[in-house]
Amino acid sequence: MSPHFSITHRVQFSETDLAGIMHFSNFFKMMEEVEHAFFRSVGLSVSMQHDDIHIGWPRVSATCDFSGPVRFEDEVECKMRVVRVGDKSFTYEVEFLVKGKRVALGKTTSVCCAVGKEMKSIAIPKAIRGKLTGEG
Amino acid sequence: MSPHFSITHRVQFSETDLAGIMHFSNFFKMMEEVEHAFFRSVGLSVSMQHDDIHIGWPRVSATCDFSGPVRFEDEVECKMRVVRVGDKSFTYEVEFLVKGKRVALGKTTSVCCAVGKEMKSIAIPKAIRGKLTGEG
Amino acid sequence: MSPHFSITHRVQFSETDLAGIMHFSNFFKMMEEVEHAFFRSVGLSVSMQHDDIHIGWPRVSATCDFSGPVRFEDEVECKMRVVRVGDKSFTYEVEFLVKGKRVALGKTTSVCCAVGKEMKSIAIPKAIRGKLTGEG
Amino acid sequence: MSPHFSITHRVQFSETDLAGIMHFSNFFKMMEEVEHAFFRSVGLSVSMQHDDIHIGWPRVSATCDFSGPVRFEDEVECKMRVVRVGDKSFTYEVEFLVKGKRVALGKTTSVCCAVGKEMKSIAIPKAIRGKLTGEG
Repeated sequence: MSPHFSITHRVQFSETDLAGIMHFSNFFKMMEEVEHAFFRSVGLSVSMQHDDIHIGWPRVSATCDFSGPVRFEDEVECKMRVVRVGDKSFTYEVEFLVKGKRVALGKTTSVCCAVGKEMKSIAIPKAIRGKLTGEG
Repeated sequence: MSPHFSITHRVQFSETDLAGIMHFSNFFKMMEEVEHAFFRSVGLSVSMQHDDIHIGWPRVSATCDFSGPVRFEDEVECKMRVVRVGDKSFTYEVEFLVKGKRVALGKTTSVCCAVGKEMKSIAIPKAIRGKLTGEG
Repeated sequence: MSPHFSITHRVQFSETDLAGIMHFSNFFKMMEEVEHAFFRSVGLSVSMQHDDIHIGWPRVSATCDFSGPVRFEDEVECKMRVVRVGDKSFTYEVEFLVKGKRVALGKTTSVCCAVGKEMKSIAIPKAIRGKLTGEG
Repeated sequence: MSPHFSITHRVQFSETDLAGIMHFSNFFKMMEEVEHAFFRSVGLSVSMQHDDIHIGWPRVSATCDFSGPVRFEDEVECKMRVVRVGDKSFTYEVEFLVKGKRVALGKTTSVCCAVGKEMKSIAIPKAIRGKLTGEG
């Protein structure tokens, strides 16, 4: 669907663990970091007002396969690709590379929700959908 | 002022860093962990409604001196002592011990605020003050 | 295979995000927290010496499906079940419950490695395998 | 002593808390982030070999005063100034600004150590000292 969107994340000391590598939970944070940078790049925010509704994107699933270690001060390329924009949900994949070599591959699905006292899933507003698919 | 209040925190793998010890930022999280456990122990929450006001406690300062390493799976005793309950602010100290030996000493001050679109400092409500000082 | 092993994790303030719920990355940290508590419960550590080899367990995959929000101060039951102990790998599932209701379901696979300058996968030593399967 | 050294840190969603602002513990991580960027800028790393010694910089103290909230997606300027390079220790201050306005001011002191089974404080090697003071 969409072309790739990339950011680079420098691994911080606080992200490493006693095994000397980046703690695996940070891959999930980096997935979110590139997602949010992508939202900004198309003029959106993951926490925004739209037609007087506060829209949020809680996740329904997140997965990641790890194929190599990532170390302190490594520059990790986070290469995101939108896989599917459904009626209410949004799925993307992130390939993580260090010096051009894949170290992990993640995927996550979020659902468009109206945020109030409770969260309620809603159809992705047309104007937002167009920006996510690159067709708007 | 008040007697000590203690919890024990087991150091998690994700809290260590490549130096093989717990990352120093986690001492500040543990200070908050014991503070919130203390609030619960006196029937409060740091995020609560009181007379229709949503009360929060943003910090104005936090400091910690470190005297020894803390390692994976260590059980850290976090020993909190309320140092001062001012008109609008709340100061406490936390001594961190591993096997009875001090490894760090922290201190932090929070201000009682009404939380809305903006945060506004307010006098600590009498009922809350009594619980913090142990005199209510 | 093995029966369930459970711990309870109290959601900390620092684990919440501006959506008012626990940030999803913390589910992965809780998966690790219960795994390590399980290791301790059978007399092991995830970072241990065995026959002069330093053994570690890097992950090859982690996944989680989320079905409900988890909030500040919630007590999350993390219910772990060993799914498979392979020749070199170890897979388990964690069901997360709040007040008896499932809020998420995670799964992860780690590989037994000799840790030195590089990590090298090895067959899980027999004594360790027995403890993981509950047959040793 | 040295002139200022700055980086910009974009506040991530995972760094916010339910009060809608960046969790205070992240100021300490940002202090470390700018410190390490400064080390790199002068050709050093906080985790490095020097004359066959593995050198590390454990902290002995860290403090921060907070004067305003920092929010999701804010770009925080982290402006570091070396305050003192002692015989064995290194002290710096970080001013945090959002849109040119100070939101926090931190200070931390680290000690130069030879890292082995134990950590042992050592005099800062001359070549490293020169780079930290800007006189080498």
